[in-house]
Amino acid sequence: MYRSHNCGEIRASHINKTVILSGWVQKSRNKGFIVWIDLRDRYGITQLVFDEDRSSKALLEQAQKLGREYVIQVKGTVIERASKNPNIATGDIEILVSKLTVLNESLLPPFTIEDQTDGGEDLRMKYRYLDIRRNPVKNNLIFRAKVTQEVRNYLSNIGFIEVETPYLIKSTPEGARDFVVPSRMNEGEFYALPQSPQTFKQLLMVGGMDKYFQIVKCFRDEDLRADRQPEFTQIDCEMAFVEQEDILTVFEGLTRHLLKEVNGVEINQFPRLLYDDAMRLYGNDKPDIRFGMEFGELNHVSQHKEFKVFNDAELVVGIAVPNGNDFTRKQIDKLIDWVKRPQIGALGMVYCRCNEDGTYKSSVDKFYSQEDLAKWAEVTGAKKGDLICILSGVTHKVRAQLSALRMELAERLGLRNPKVFAPLWVIDFPLLELDEDTGNYHAMHHPFTSPKPGQIELLDSKPGEVKANAYDLVLNGNEIGGGSIRIHDKATQAIMLKHLGFSEEEARAQFGFLMDAFEYGAPPHGGLAFGLDRLVAILGGQETIRDFIAFPKNNSGRDVMIDAPAPIDNDQLKELNLKLDTKEVI
Amino acid sequence: MYRSHNCGEIRASHINKTVILSGWVQKSRNKGFIVWIDLRDRYGITQLVFDEDRSSKALLEQAQKLGREYVIQVKGTVIERASKNPNIATGDIEILVSKLTVLNESLLPPFTIEDQTDGGEDLRMKYRYLDIRRNPVKNNLIFRAKVTQEVRNYLSNIGFIEVETPYLIKSTPEGARDFVVPSRMNEGEFYALPQSPQTFKQLLMVGGMDKYFQIVKCFRDEDLRADRQPEFTQIDCEMAFVEQEDILTVFEGLTRHLLKEVNGVEINQFPRLLYDDAMRLYGNDKPDIRFGMEFGELNHVSQHKEFKVFNDAELVVGIAVPNGNDFTRKQIDKLIDWVKRPQIGALGMVYCRCNEDGTYKSSVDKFYSQEDLAKWAEVTGAKKGDLICILSGVTHKVRAQLSALRMELAERLGLRNPKVFAPLWVIDFPLLELDEDTGNYHAMHHPFTSPKPGQIELLDSKPGEVKANAYDLVLNGNEIGGGSIRIHDKATQAIMLKHLGFSEEEARAQFGFLMDAFEYGAPPHGGLAFGLDRLVAILGGQETIRDFIAFPKNNSGRDVMIDAPAPIDNDQLKELNLKLDTKEVI
Repeated sequence: MYRSHNCGEIRASHINKTVILSGWVQKSRNKGFIVWIDLRDRYGITQLVFDEDRSSKALLEQAQKLGREYVIQVKGTVIERASKNPNIATGDIEILVSKLTVLNESLLPPFTIEDQTDGGEDLRMKYRYLDIRRNPVKNNLIFRAKVTQEVRNYLSNIGFIEVETPYLIKSTPEGARDFVVPSRMNEGEFYALPQSPQTFKQLLMVGGMDKYFQIVKCFRDEDLRADRQPEFTQIDCEMAFVEQEDILTVFEGLTRHLLKEVNGVEINQFPRLLYDDAMRLYGNDKPDIRFGMEFGELNHVSQHKEFKVFNDAELVVGIAVPNGNDFTRKQIDKLIDWVKRPQIGALGMVYCRCNEDGTYKSSVDKFYSQEDLAKWAEVTGAKKGDLICILSGVTHKVRAQLSALRMELAERLGLRNPKVFAPLWVIDFPLLELDEDTGNYHAMHHPFTSPKPGQIELLDSKPGEVKANAYDLVLNGNEIGGGSIRIHDKATQAIMLKHLGFSEEEARAQFGFLMDAFEYGAPPHGGLAFGLDRLVAILGGQETIRDFIAFPKNNSGRDVMIDAPAPIDNDQLKELNLKLDTKEVI
Repeated sequence: MYRSHNCGEIRASHINKTVILSGWVQKSRNKGFIVWIDLRDRYGITQLVFDEDRSSKALLEQAQKLGREYVIQVKGTVIERASKNPNIATGDIEILVSKLTVLNESLLPPFTIEDQTDGGEDLRMKYRYLDIRRNPVKNNLIFRAKVTQEVRNYLSNIGFIEVETPYLIKSTPEGARDFVVPSRMNEGEFYALPQSPQTFKQLLMVGGMDKYFQIVKCFRDEDLRADRQPEFTQIDCEMAFVEQEDILTVFEGLTRHLLKEVNGVEINQFPRLLYDDAMRLYGNDKPDIRFGMEFGELNHVSQHKEFKVFNDAELVVGIAVPNGNDFTRKQIDKLIDWVKRPQIGALGMVYCRCNEDGTYKSSVDKFYSQEDLAKWAEVTGAKKGDLICILSGVTHKVRAQLSALRMELAERLGLRNPKVFAPLWVIDFPLLELDEDTGNYHAMHHPFTSPKPGQIELLDSKPGEVKANAYDLVLNGNEIGGGSIRIHDKATQAIMLKHLGFSEEEARAQFGFLMDAFEYGAPPHGGLAFGLDRLVAILGGQETIRDFIAFPKNNSGRDVMIDAPAPIDNDQLKELNLKLDTKEVI
């Protein structure tokens, strides 16, 4: 037996008991005549003591030799601590050790195993197994497990069935790039790893397996933007015989449950925002509504003067920055530089100070009167002491720019409090999205999303205006879930695929099995998927998903700890009937 | 709203209430003046009624047109049924329909959606979404979800943390063949899909994440034997600071819990059998102990006469078949043919009838006396009326042959009752296994399994005799779980890898990260993994895992429903820097 107790559970009530503990040497304080060791395991830290009076000389010497992260087992008596430590649960006691066994030695770790470590990201990733010993990482992983279990139990309790769908499926050119898996037994053929179990969950609905969920890994071979992973986890859900309202109700219930159980936050009803309103008010389909700064559209109060920049703009739009009038001229100039960075792409920024005396001072005073500026304040909701920041240009671009500025300012002003949770639904998404590069429309959600009733006729004439039965669940400025009511009849699915540019043959080759299934009594159905990594990070008050993944990959899709991916044997390639087609380096 | 109730919940207490139901037309009985429809959903069947007296003409005609598997919605009043059906939960009532909406039509399904269907396996797999509508498949999937949830809750309640490990890892030539995934971003390199999360769970132990579990998909690119799947699900577990006894206790607890909660069977303590004894008594390391027929080794009572076949044999071994003396001569001849089939490979079978009058009649009466035969009966435990079946030859072959015969006879005699559960531990497995083809030893469990204390010295002299800290959990003749105490120090791991034929460079390239990890304070650890597919099948009283997988693959690793694997675009190949290297067909 390696231990009678763990390092987090011994209390004053155990005093005089003999215990056996195992764990890692967190810290050693060696005063020569006395040695204290902090012994750590997953559950906590317990202080060990060895001294000249009460320990044998051999034992004391043995203790003095222990290095950081040595794995040891001790037997000893629980005694009261002279100077108690109220900061840890075991702070009332210590263990007077009678026997010490070194279970394994340790090299000096490459970074300190402390909450605030001296190790950089790269080093911590290479030695992730040491990083996981640190409380912040360990607690994040435990937190993730707790959230996951809450999700499973909540959904199971309301009749959802977890069904495993396959990982070795078929590649579809639609959407992001697939990871593929060559098949040895089927020469020249490949499986694909699922980007999501979308078609399978729909087939489960056709199969009558009403109320399905699955917590499942999904894969996308994308060029990794910051904080994306090639493999990620979804809470994937689908229901039959439902309308949008049924789905929102169920998953609002789940999210409310999580906020309550995990964060102790009670939220009654989630606001709902039309997609068009979200874009108009926040320039963004996943608005952070923990703070105001709603957009004010200023065209009608800014395009009547000689200011050409505004007059030529499709949209003139501003936000009121609370107490922004405190910004110095230099700070404002820096803000203007910030929006002009290529990543944001604004050509400039007009601002207007709202002075405490009710007057206004703008960067375009030569064009606009105090009355004009007062109207800007009214439209943007600016109060005395605020600063109005105004951008102008092509609508979709300027909205994105102002949204970025709004988030940046909120961050700087400390308005994005991770302990505050502001969920909302964004509904009535467009069905199609214009790809500016190709001029083609593609599915905004995916090709299985149904258009709003009566709108399918618009597909030919005004494809960009067709709204979908699609919805996103947004939390603190992040999309944590999204879904739709699906198409469930072959004819509509065929029309949809045609509009997405699939020939009949392509549609048949890719989605024939689904179209066939729709002919055998497919029920109305719809669903939603949560991004678990992000959901967990946000509930945990953080935004970096990597911190909530045990063994994440870096931005090149590499696992630097195991050094994957890696070359494989020629024999392996041969068995798969493959050859490398590497570019010649001359 | 598509429904106010589901099709399984309406009872007599609902009579006179108005309800809305949605579901599939299971069956229609049209008598002209009256139509009954069985409406089915996931939850059950409710009878609908339409008739001349109480329904409008239009409604009656509409009902008469409904085909099998049409998806409909009805509104109506719950009424008492004239002739009640005690076989279904809703059998006291029916719905007098006032409104009928066809939500989707259906082609005639290619097989009947009944518990006993007319569809063959291939057809059912192609239309798996229809197969899932059938109760046996649907109930198996629901059963699987229930078992899985029980596992998760049990382990979570005793402090296990579910941690997700990566799917895109590194290929290792050890063990079965890996599925590989070409990396687009890392030219010429490949990920591998995990055969198990073995190294990651060990790294989690090094990381202090004591008590890990995960229900996780694993992948093996093997030539598929009957009832194997290229992707399968494991309940993967690992603990730190444990000895074998700790692990057996925890997972015996889990299994006992499942048997009780899922099957209502209480089993106090699981027997333990040494590997050597399992082989001696059952010729098999996963014995079915629901019935007797233990092996009796007969060398000492059969090699003293002139019967050369026995005298030349390394092992002479028999079993007593209960009441086997009832077999006719013809039946026994067929049994002899059965053991001589190439799949079994015995050269012949000696038998001995145990007559009711206490005499014996054997096929080798010219060599053996009644006294000899009485000893055989004693050794095999044969009673009057039994039949002793005896095989002889090289020990490991003859054991396998007699084991196959034992199982076949038990099957024929109805001794393998799927409602009876007989779990046991098989312990003290050999560390290494001789590969007869190559003459090399390889790890019986895997290269991370620790030898029994003090036995590592035997690795050089008697590698085949070294026993490991390895154990299997066996249920009804199937290995449902297996595991080991792992090596946790670099030196031992290096010795082990050397004995498995890895050069130092190979060991470094493949397992360097693990060996490094062992140098930073790796704790003693061990674990176990259950094969979830088989566990669920056996608890469900069946043995075919395919019946418990929503979308299984066939023996060629194909999903015949979605038709995967499939060729991929040349562009996709090019992006992956790959070329097909297909064999020329001349």
